[in-house]
Order: sequence, then C-alpha cells, then structure tokens
Amino acid sequence: MHPKPAPGFPETLITPDPEAGFALAIQLSRLGVKSAQPDVDVLKRLRPAYAENADSLIAASQVVAIHFQTIAAANRWWRRGAEEA
Amino acid sequence: MHPKPAPGFPETLITPDPEAGFALAIQLSRLGVKSAQPDVDVLKRLRPAYAENADSLIAASQVVAIHFQTIAAANRWWRRGAEEA
Amino acid sequence: MHPKPAPGFPETLITPDPEAGFALAIQLSRLGVKSAQPDVDVLKRLRPAYAENADSLIAASQVVAIHFQTIAAANRWWRRGAEEA
Amino acid sequence: MHPKPAPGFPETLITPDPEAGFALAIQLSRLGVKSAQPDVDVLKRLRPAYAENADSLIAASQVVAIHFQTIAAANRWWRRGAEEA
Amino acid sequence: MHPKPAPGFPETLITPDPEAGFALAIQLSRLGVKSAQPDVDVLKRLRPAYAENADSLIAASQVVAIHFQTIAAANRWWRRGAEEA
Amino acid sequence: MHPKPAPGFPETLITPDPEAGFALAIQLSRLGVKSAQPDVDVLKRLRPAYAENADSLIAASQVVAIHFQTIAAANRWWRRGAEEA
Repeated sequence: MHPKPAPGFPETLITPDPEAGFALAIQLSRLGVKSAQPDVDVLKRLRPAYAENADSLIAASQVVAIHFQTIAAANRWWRRGAEEA
Repeated sequence: MHPKPAPGFPETLITPDPEAGFALAIQLSRLGVKSAQPDVDVLKRLRPAYAENADSLIAASQVVAIHFQTIAAANRWWRRGAEEA
Repeated sequence: MHPKPAPGFPETLITPDPEAGFALAIQLSRLGVKSAQPDVDVLKRLRPAYAENADSLIAASQVVAIHFQTIAAANRWWRRGAEEA
Repeated sequence: MHPKPAPGFPETLITPDPEAGFALAIQLSRLGVKSAQPDVDVLKRLRPAYAENADSLIAASQVVAIHFQTIAAANRWWRRGAEEA
Repeated sequence: MHPKPAPGFPETLITPDPEAGFALAIQLSRLGVKSAQPDVDVLKRLRPAYAENADSLIAASQVVAIHFQTIAAANRWWRRGAEEA
Repeated sequence: MHPKPAPGFPETLITPDPEAGFALAIQLSRLGVKSAQPDVDVLKRLRPAYAENADSLIAASQVVAIHFQTIAAANRWWRRGAEEA
C-alpha cells in the first residue's frame, strides 16, 4: 500500500552510540533522496556538481541534522552510557 | 470545513517498524505536494526536471525527514521492538 | 494588540484522525501565507507560476509538514484510536 | 548584555486559544526580522517585492509555523479547553 | 578538542522571561554565523546587501525561531510566571 | 553496514555547559558536510566563496541551530547547573 523506500532499510533506530546514530542519519538522508530518484545512475551523474557546491552540501547536512535529531531522541540521547562513564 | 488532503490518506501514524514509518513519511510528503497541486498531469510534467536536480532532491528528502520525525514520535521510536530483540 | 491572522481560524488543534489533522495543517499553512499577503487577488495571480514550480511545491509541503508535526503532537499522535483498533 | 529585540515583546507565550497563539507566532516572526533590520523604512521598501513573491511568502509562513510550534507547546496545545468542550 | 564558538557565550539558557529568551536566540544566531565567518570586517561588509534583502532577512529570522524553540523549552516556556500572574 | 561519518566523532552528546554544547553543534555540522564531501581539499577550495556569502552563512548557522537543539535536549538544557547557581 505504502510507497516503498529503497532496500537496505535499518530494522531499528537504536544504535550503540552517537557515532553510529550519525551514520544512520546519513543513511536515512540518502534513502530519502533515493525515494525521489531511485535511478542510481542519475544520482551518480548529479554528484560531481552537487559535491562541489557549498550550498548543496549545507542543505544535505541539514537533512542529516534533522534525522540525527530523530535518532538521538530514539536513543534517549545515549545519556545512560554517558552517565555511567 | 477544512481543505481536503488528496485521497488515500492513512488512518493511523502507527506502523510496525521504521521502514514502514519511512514509507509513510514519503507518502505524507507526496500528499503535501498534491494538496498544493492536485493536477497529477502537472506533477508528471514537473517530475523530469525536478528528479535530475540535486537541490530539489535534497529539499524533497528534507520534507520526508520532517514527516519521519513526526511518525517516529508517534511510534515511540519503535523502541519496544528493539529492546525485546 | 496582536496582529490578526486571517478569518476562519480553527478553535482547536484537536482532530478526530490524522487525515483531519493533515487538512488542518494545510489550512494553517494557507493562513500563514495570508498573514503576509492578505490580498486574495494577489495570491490568485501568484498561483499559476507557483503551482507549476517543483521547488515551490516542495517548500509549501515543508510548511505543511511542520504544522502537521505540531498538530500530531496536540493529538498525542492519535495513538489511542490506533491502539484500540 | 544581550542584543535587544524590537520593542513590544509579549510578556508571556500563554494565549487563550490557538488563534491568539497564531497571531503571536506572526508577531514573533516580525520581531525576528526587525532584529536583523530595525529600520522600518527599509522594511517598508522591501515589502512590495516580497509580498508578490510566492517563494518569499512560503518562507515567511515557515517561520510562522516554527514559532507556532513553540507557542503551541507552551500552551500544551490548548488541549484542556478542547477536552472540556 | 571541540571547535570554539566566538567569545561571549552565555553561561545558561535560562532567562527571566520570553523577551530575554528571544534576545538570547538572536545572540546564538549571530554566534552561529561567527563560527563560520569569524572575521568581523567581512561580516560588516556583507551586512548592507543582506539587510536589504527580504529573503535573507526571513532566513535569518528562521534561525532565530529555531534557537528560540530551544531556549523556550529550556525555560519550560516560562509557564510558571504566566500561571502565577 | 552503515556509511561511516568522518573520523573524530564525539563519544557523547553530554557537555558541561551550553558553550561546549554549541561547540559540539558546530562540530556535528562540519561532520555532516564532510559526510557528503570527504575531500578536504575540495572543502578548502569552496570555503572563500561560501564564507563571503551572507545566505550561505545563514544556512550554515541554521544547521548549527538544529544540532544545538538536539544537544541541548540531550543535556536537559543544562538546567541543573542554572538552578543551583
């Protein structure tokens, strides 16, 4: 019924630490782009111009920041590990 | 009284797992666009230029990220399943 | 004392289901635009170019997504109905 | 010590209902712009072009949506009044 | 270890009232810009064009809105004072 | 399995005070950009144009603001220190 995200979707938002959570945020950002443009060849073709444009890079990092916000909340901000340390 | 969103709106924000939640976020993003431009033929006409523009794809993935934030909160970030696993 | 939003503002953010909440988010987005440009004739004049511009449509759907986030929180994400179903 | 927002700042974020909360969100958006450009004459000069540009209007309505999110949370989404009604 | 924000950073996000919180949001927005461009002379040179561009002013006010959201949450939306009043 | 963020990722989001939290937000913003463009030479080449463009600087400060929102929540807004003071 629902449109399908690209394959390789994670089974959980829970990660062991902030670094893994950030990696997951990057992955979700990419899956979001792929849901709009599933053709990997097109994405590869777009990449050079995008990756050398400061405004595009900032925009991409903003999407990562929004997903990281979600994932950090899912993990209760990894507070427990920090407080135990 | 209210403006009507496009047909096919989901009855709940609750999904079994993050992947289905992400698919729902994509669906809500599309319904948001359709609420501003209900003419599917226009949307199809706009698609090629949009789908080959890196900045448009990033912008679209940002809307998905915002909806995913809402849906993840609705599902309490699917924590229970993760903790049981 | 406060600037006045356009007439027709809803009395509550509580809605029976996500679909009605999304409709309300669309309505709030439009009221936000009308607060900046109350002249309906100007808005009508702007509409054709806007409604055929993919980036404008994505931007509009982002505002809907932000309002939907607020409304979903107001309704505790309509969880109760989902859990009863 | 702090930079000063423009005069006329509200003493509280608490409002009787969503409509007054939305009006307050519009007011905060304007105070945000005035903090960057306090010269009212410049703002008046910019207004005609801005108010006839769909993308500017959408961007302005997004800032209203973000402030409305804050104000709605401050008011616990005006749930009590709704539940009593 | 961490990159350093510009000097003059506030010791707390707690403020007596919404107006002081908004002033702090403006201050954080400026510190964010300074972290990317610490050269005050460059910032001064950029200011005239920026301060007469409606879209730049709206974008700046959006950053203030995001910081104000954070600060309002830190202060539990200054609800206590409001309820006592 | 996950894409890797750039090296140097912090082990925790917990910081002693808002200033260190803001520094961490700046660091996360930069790591987000590096995840999209890992080539430091390209980033250095892009920097001059970006750092003299007011709109780019505002966009960058918005990403910092979003990360600061996450980090402030992780630290419960550093309220305890403030209340003890």
